[in-house]
Amino acid sequence: MANPTQRTACLILIGNELLSGRTQDLNLAYVGKGLNRHGIRLAEARVIPDIQEAIVRAVNECRKIYDFVFTTGGIGPTHDDITAESIAHAFGVPYEPHPEAVASLRNHYTSEDLNESRLRMANMPRGARLIYNPSSGAPGFAMENVYVMAGVPRIMQAMFDSLYNELGEGPETYSETLSCFLTEGNLATRLRKIQGTHLHVEIGSYPFYQGGSFGTSLVVRGLDHDAVKATCHDIAEMIGDLGGEVLDRNT
Amino acid sequence: MANPTQRTACLILIGNELLSGRTQDLNLAYVGKGLNRHGIRLAEARVIPDIQEAIVRAVNECRKIYDFVFTTGGIGPTHDDITAESIAHAFGVPYEPHPEAVASLRNHYTSEDLNESRLRMANMPRGARLIYNPSSGAPGFAMENVYVMAGVPRIMQAMFDSLYNELGEGPETYSETLSCFLTEGNLATRLRKIQGTHLHVEIGSYPFYQGGSFGTSLVVRGLDHDAVKATCHDIAEMIGDLGGEVLDRNT
Repeated sequence: MANPTQRTACLILIGNELLSGRTQDLNLAYVGKGLNRHGIRLAEARVIPDIQEAIVRAVNECRKIYDFVFTTGGIGPTHDDITAESIAHAFGVPYEPHPEAVASLRNHYTSEDLNESRLRMANMPRGARLIYNPSSGAPGFAMENVYVMAGVPRIMQAMFDSLYNELGEGPETYSETLSCFLTEGNLATRLRKIQGTHLHVEIGSYPFYQGGSFGTSLVVRGLDHDAVKATCHDIAEMIGDLGGEVLDRNT
Repeated sequence: MANPTQRTACLILIGNELLSGRTQDLNLAYVGKGLNRHGIRLAEARVIPDIQEAIVRAVNECRKIYDFVFTTGGIGPTHDDITAESIAHAFGVPYEPHPEAVASLRNHYTSEDLNESRLRMANMPRGARLIYNPSSGAPGFAMENVYVMAGVPRIMQAMFDSLYNELGEGPETYSETLSCFLTEGNLATRLRKIQGTHLHVEIGSYPFYQGGSFGTSLVVRGLDHDAVKATCHDIAEMIGDLGGEVLDRNT
């Protein structure tokens, strides 16, 4: 189903706290869903620690492969916030105060509160384009196709949403889900045939356990709305033939 | 803080549903926490789609770099479950019925229920070592340092826990958290000095918003318990000096 006309993206989640299990990530799902509204396919995500070498390597590998790279985390005022400096290294440009970012911080904080550590949040790779942060005066930034955002979900979401115009439009993936109380093992053989006759959609099969019974959710995704609908029709027929019932149907 | 005596691991989460945002991942945090009990540091995680080429590339890259590679997802009975076959490709070995896995399925299902699709779950790379699955008859498996587990969290957790003896023991990372209602920007300068005098621990700083107030959680991690305690002592002193109060303290 991977369509060559769709633009692709990679999300790099930066933070020791995600790898140690201290913090449950919530950013991947938000970005994955959000990109689909722009017709951009999230093709990969990586979770890496707050280590400059790891950030430089991941960013430089991914910005060549994908149309867009998004990073989250590591742009605050503390010593463990090393993303901006690492991005400067990745691009081989100076890491220095960004005049507009300094102005944004001066606008948000009193001169007493705007200490050395907070001012550090205005240090960016030379040539960075700012990403608006409505939650605090500290913006994110973009360098070429790399978009550097905060890690705190609420702030990340606001930054991502502010890129709406920049990310543009593309062919959207249509998605429809049919669930039933039949198990994957009972559906699999017929389902494989249905996938075999609908090559322009992607059928995902996900088992669930609910109210003491096992069931399966079948997710049909594709760029051609009619093909998605035709596939769902065949799946609904299969579920009926196998003695099941379509429980709910979400577009 | 990355200690050369610690063994390292990479987790590869396989599944279109994670990248599209349909499914919220819960496996990363579980594996990250679990590995720490074995003294293994989760150094990276990747989320990749159900595409053979992507699986082969990620597995072959990561199994050379890290001591352990864990994968989740794609070992069920449906057409989109392509992990086992992809792992066989990655290792350049045949993909064929594993006699013990076939026996496990025959033990779990009646001969009527054990259809062609369910039997496919016993197909594995030649030479695979089975990973016990208490939830159904379909085991996971390991090839050299690559551990292939289910994607459903409950099943993944049972498989991971069954590796307890195999993963062995190593130097455990001690972790202690101090939280306060001071903001990162007010703590950052003193905190940087504390990190500078305690080089064998890693201090993470994580902002939070609770009951209408902003605060910060400081997480101290390290292999040397005394160094962690000494760092926490200095952090508690800093919080007091800055007019704050340690809210809770979790080990």
